[in-house]
Amino acid sequence: MKDRNRVREVIEADSPYTRGTDEYYMDRAIRLARLGAGHVNPNPLVGAVIVKSGRIIGAGYHEEIGGLHAERNALAACTEDPAGSDIYVTLEPCCHYGKQPPCTDALLAAGVRRVIIGSRDPNPLVSGKGVRILREQGVEVVTDFLRAECDRLNPVFFHYITRKQPYVTLKYAMTLDGKIASAAGESRWISSEASREKARRDRGLSMGILVGVGTVLADDPALTCRAPGLIDPVRVILDTRLRTPLTAQVMKTAAVLPAQGGLPEVSTRNGMRYPRTVIATCEKDKNKLEPYRKAGALVLSLPPDEDGRVSVPVLLKKLGTMKMDSLYVEGGGNVHWSFLRERAADKVQIYIGPLLLGGADARSPVEGAGFPSPPEALRLTGIRTERIGDDLFLEGYPRTGGSSCLQE
Amino acid sequence: MKDRNRVREVIEADSPYTRGTDEYYMDRAIRLARLGAGHVNPNPLVGAVIVKSGRIIGAGYHEEIGGLHAERNALAACTEDPAGSDIYVTLEPCCHYGKQPPCTDALLAAGVRRVIIGSRDPNPLVSGKGVRILREQGVEVVTDFLRAECDRLNPVFFHYITRKQPYVTLKYAMTLDGKIASAAGESRWISSEASREKARRDRGLSMGILVGVGTVLADDPALTCRAPGLIDPVRVILDTRLRTPLTAQVMKTAAVLPAQGGLPEVSTRNGMRYPRTVIATCEKDKNKLEPYRKAGALVLSLPPDEDGRVSVPVLLKKLGTMKMDSLYVEGGGNVHWSFLRERAADKVQIYIGPLLLGGADARSPVEGAGFPSPPEALRLTGIRTERIGDDLFLEGYPRTGGSSCLQE
Repeated sequence: MKDRNRVREVIEADSPYTRGTDEYYMDRAIRLARLGAGHVNPNPLVGAVIVKSGRIIGAGYHEEIGGLHAERNALAACTEDPAGSDIYVTLEPCCHYGKQPPCTDALLAAGVRRVIIGSRDPNPLVSGKGVRILREQGVEVVTDFLRAECDRLNPVFFHYITRKQPYVTLKYAMTLDGKIASAAGESRWISSEASREKARRDRGLSMGILVGVGTVLADDPALTCRAPGLIDPVRVILDTRLRTPLTAQVMKTAAVLPAQGGLPEVSTRNGMRYPRTVIATCEKDKNKLEPYRKAGALVLSLPPDEDGRVSVPVLLKKLGTMKMDSLYVEGGGNVHWSFLRERAADKVQIYIGPLLLGGADARSPVEGAGFPSPPEALRLTGIRTERIGDDLFLEGYPRTGGSSCLQE
Repeated sequence: MKDRNRVREVIEADSPYTRGTDEYYMDRAIRLARLGAGHVNPNPLVGAVIVKSGRIIGAGYHEEIGGLHAERNALAACTEDPAGSDIYVTLEPCCHYGKQPPCTDALLAAGVRRVIIGSRDPNPLVSGKGVRILREQGVEVVTDFLRAECDRLNPVFFHYITRKQPYVTLKYAMTLDGKIASAAGESRWISSEASREKARRDRGLSMGILVGVGTVLADDPALTCRAPGLIDPVRVILDTRLRTPLTAQVMKTAAVLPAQGGLPEVSTRNGMRYPRTVIATCEKDKNKLEPYRKAGALVLSLPPDEDGRVSVPVLLKKLGTMKMDSLYVEGGGNVHWSFLRERAADKVQIYIGPLLLGGADARSPVEGAGFPSPPEALRLTGIRTERIGDDLFLEGYPRTGGSSCLQE
C-alpha cells in the first residue's frame, strides 16, 4: 500500500449517497480507483472496498502496473478477518493468470460472502467468467451496480482492450473567433496559464503525445508534462518528409544515455520499455532514417494516405501493438484534419481563450480539405464545459468513433 | 395601460427578496421595466411601483415611445389616492419637457412622500436635477438603490445618450473549430433552430441590423425578426462598391408602396419615420445611386476607411443622427473585422454549434488583417455562457469600447 493516508481520506470523504448503503460503498471504491490515474496504463483503474457488519474493514486500488490488483490490495489492508464480508469492486474480478494470479481465487480463499461489481470485463473472451466462477462457488454476486459511473473510470482501457489501438484525445487552444495563432504566426498565449497547466497534466495521463513536424519546427517544444508524480509521455512526431531537426528538443532528449557510454537506452514506463521519441514518417531511405535511430528515436516508416501524409490508421495500429493505450494529439490544423477525416479522434478537448484575434490568414484548429457542409461535419456529443480562469474549456466525443460508453 | 394582466403577473411573480422590503418593490419595478423591451427605443426601459401602507396601489412601465412614462402609468393605475405613498422607479424621474411633461411635476402633484430611485439619468445635463427638485419640495429621495440591477436594464440607452451613436452587438454562429461556413461555402446550418430563433428575436430588439453585401449576394436574406410583437429592424447593407442587386429581398421590400401608387413611403417605427433599407456605400455616382433611392432605400454615400471600405465610425455617427440607438451586426469575417479593428463593437454574441467542419479555406468569423498577436487581440470580459439546445451561446463585452456599466 503506497499511501494509507490517501486511502483514508477517500474513505472518509463526503458522499452524495447515504452512509451504509451499497451505493455509498461503491462510490468509495470508484473514488479509490481514481487514485491510480496515470500509473496503471494500459491497465484499468480499479477500486475495492470490503465491508463487514456495516464497517469498512479493508480498501484498496490498483496502484501501478505490475502491482497488486485492487481486490488483493483491499484484502491485504483488512483490519480483521474478511470471511463473511461484502466486497465492492468497480470492475469484474479477473479469473485468469496475467501479471497477477486470478482475483477470483483470492476472494474465494478469503471467504467473501457477497461480491458487488460495477463494470463488466470488456474483454469478450473473459467477460462474465469471473462472475460465473464466484457464483459456482456459492458466492452471491451483484453485477452492473452503478455501472455507468464505473464504466466512466476506464474509457481508455475499454477502448484499448476492444480495439487494440490507442484512445485518441485531440486537443487545441483557440480564440473566440477560431484562431490557433495570429496571421503573423503568434500563438503565445491564446489560453491562460491555468489552462496550459491543465493541458500539461493531461499529457501525463496519456501514454503518448503526438504533434506534427510543423509544431517542432515552429516551437521546438519538449512535450513533457512537468507535473509532479506523472510520467512524461512518449513523444510521437508526425513527420511525413522527415524534417525534424536532429537538434530539436524531442531528438536531443530521445535517448537516456548510459553513464558509461554505449548505445542509448529506451525509457521504462510502468515496467515496460518504451522509446522516448517516435518519428512517424513516409521516408524510406535508410541512410536518412539512421541518424534518428542512432539518436535514440524509434523511427516508423509508414505508408502515405491519399493526401500523401503518414496514414493515421496505420500509425494507430502500430502504436497499439506497442501497447500504447492512449494518445494525446496536440497538432496544428492539418494534423487534426488527418485524424478527424479518418474518424480517429475519440475525445476532443478545446480551450477557448476570451480573445478576438481576426486575420483571414490566421491558422485554424482544423484545416485540410474539410467536410463539404455542416450536416456532413463531425458532431460532438456529451459536451461538458468548464471555466478555467478566463478561458472556457470544452470536452466532447465525436459521434462516429469513440467509446460509446461515453456518449451520454 | 396596454395589458393589465401582464403587469399583475409581474407584480405577483416570485422574488429573491423578502416581501415588503425596499428591494422587493424595486425588483418588481425592474421586472415591469423589461416588458417595454423592443417598443421604447431609443427611450430607456423604466418601471415604477407605488406602495402605501405596505400594499402596492399602482404599478406601470414605459410601454411605447411617445406614450406615458412609467411614473405616470403607475400613478394612473393607482387604486387609491397616492398621497403619502412611496414610489420605486428604476430611473431618475425626468424634470424637463420632452414628448411628455416632467414626471417630477406629476409626483409632486400626487403628493408622493418618498421616491426610491435606481439608475441616475445618464444625460450629464439633466443627471441629479430631478432628485434636487423633489428634495427642494420636501420629498424624501433615496438614490442609487439596486443601481447596478437598474443600470443593466438600459445598456443601449446609456450608450446612445452619452455617445450619440448606436450600441453595436456583433453576432455570429460558428463551429467548434471556428468556421462560419464550409470550404464549399455551405453555412446551413451551423447553429440549431432554437439558436436561430433566439437570434431572430434579438434582431427585433435592435433598431438596425447590418450585413455585408457578401451576405446579400450569397444568401439573399430578408433580415426580418419574424417574432410576434416585435418590429422588424432597419436593414443596413455595408456595400462599398454598390453591388446589392435591385432584385435582392432587402431592395424588393425597401418600400412600403402606397395603395394608390406614387412614391414609396418609409416605414414608421415607434412614432418616428425610418427607411426600411439603408445602403451604405463609397459609390458617389448619382446615376448609380438613383435606382436604389427610387426603390425606397436610403442611400448613404460615405468616405472609405484605410482599407478602401465604408468607414464604420462615419457610418455609426450617421446612424446616430438618425436616432438609431442600436445596431445588430450579422456580418461575415470582413464586416466583423471592420467593426473590431475600430473598437466599434459594444457586445459580442457567439453561437457555437457542436461541429468540427475543418477546411483551410473555410470562412472564419473575423478575417481582414487581424491583430498581430494574442496580447494585442480584443479581449472579451463579463462573459456569460448558456446552452441553447445542442449549441453553446456566449456573450461578452470587448474590453476597449462598450458600456463600462456592463463589464462586471
